[in-house]
Amino acid sequence: MRNYKITLEYDGSRYQGWQRQKLTTMTIQEIIEQAISEVTAYPVEIKGSGRTDAGVHAKGQTASLRLSGKVSEESFVQAVNEKLPEDIRIKGAELVKGSFHARHSAVGKCYSYCIDIREKADVFSRRYTYHHAQKLDMERMQKAATYLEGTFDYLAFTDKKEEKSAVRTINKIQICRKEDKITLLYFGSGFLYHMVRILTGTLIQVGEGEKSPEEILGILASKERAQAGFLAPAQGLCLEEVYY
Amino acid sequence: MRNYKITLEYDGSRYQGWQRQKLTTMTIQEIIEQAISEVTAYPVEIKGSGRTDAGVHAKGQTASLRLSGKVSEESFVQAVNEKLPEDIRIKGAELVKGSFHARHSAVGKCYSYCIDIREKADVFSRRYTYHHAQKLDMERMQKAATYLEGTFDYLAFTDKKEEKSAVRTINKIQICRKEDKITLLYFGSGFLYHMVRILTGTLIQVGEGEKSPEEILGILASKERAQAGFLAPAQGLCLEEVYY
Repeated sequence: MRNYKITLEYDGSRYQGWQRQKLTTMTIQEIIEQAISEVTAYPVEIKGSGRTDAGVHAKGQTASLRLSGKVSEESFVQAVNEKLPEDIRIKGAELVKGSFHARHSAVGKCYSYCIDIREKADVFSRRYTYHHAQKLDMERMQKAATYLEGTFDYLAFTDKKEEKSAVRTINKIQICRKEDKITLLYFGSGFLYHMVRILTGTLIQVGEGEKSPEEILGILASKERAQAGFLAPAQGLCLEEVYY
Repeated sequence: MRNYKITLEYDGSRYQGWQRQKLTTMTIQEIIEQAISEVTAYPVEIKGSGRTDAGVHAKGQTASLRLSGKVSEESFVQAVNEKLPEDIRIKGAELVKGSFHARHSAVGKCYSYCIDIREKADVFSRRYTYHHAQKLDMERMQKAATYLEGTFDYLAFTDKKEEKSAVRTINKIQICRKEDKITLLYFGSGFLYHMVRILTGTLIQVGEGEKSPEEILGILASKERAQAGFLAPAQGLCLEEVYY
């Protein structure tokens, strides 16, 4: 068996998230495993770089898997894509070392979160943005973002209490505005459950004036979820890239 | 009654085109007229700059309409947008001269046509592109495009025989490629029924080597629809802008 890494994009709107589940067949992992297994004619399990929640999109999700014999990457990708629905696409496959694991080998990730602040959402991107028709003060958000960068215990920014350690590193949060669309890019070592969406909800509250940029420090120190902002909706979130 | 011009964008996927019809309520004109009439509380008819076919999108369609009394453009736009479904949006409204007519006053239009030549279509833009997984020779297409520019009788490039005159002016056809997406931009005085889609189908055939760039001259001269290329699908087409 040889070890492969695949890179994927998907429109998460219709799915119950990445991870295979007992009660639904509508998970991205299951749909992809089924398509691959149809092509290989033996069961194949894939290991994602991480789980994306229901409704979250990806432009650069990665997964590792083992295939027997020699496989032509190009024709494998083509054959699997033919089996996949139109909202999931394999962008590429490559042979990797036997020790490679999509999750364990990852050294960092980039997520984007897109907010549409128009009175009414742009019709062409409406499925991939969070429509929030409020003025947001970019300077305040940018200042708050700098307080979030670094290596911290982000326990206040997750909805899962049983994390072994909530210490992570956020290398950079970039916030840019193009007309009435605001995109937040999060670069970090890894992110906790719901972390990017809670960070975004908190930054939105800072942008609206509900919280001050300096309050971020207290929220981090509190380690209490209730101190942080709301959980921004899934549809604005996209896993852009996984770094190895 | 005062005369207004509105600018619109819509995702045409769900609709039977722009023009109101007897047998369906799913036309963009009807949906907009209904939303406006609900806001004004009297029936309002709108005149579009032209009809878009079933499945065709718009980022800059325009229409003219008459409203009684003084209207605040901003709150009118907001109120109508609240009544409209999420795939149709009014981008703006402005008071115009009484003689203005969205169709008769137009001096030019820009349409875009987007082709995705990947093995499998990009999942995020799949609804707004024509997926055609073939290599296309850009140089050949560009050369053919120059033969189409000018003032000609474009009868070979329409599916409607009873046009009064098929003489139109195409000022420019721009073809650009970004990764595996090819966008054709058509700037012209006006376009016949199906014209942009037939031009696109013809240019695709040139790009594939099925036709030579020079054959364009013969097709134009023939005035025969059968000489031109296939009708490219509606979903790749978008009305970008109407000029006045």
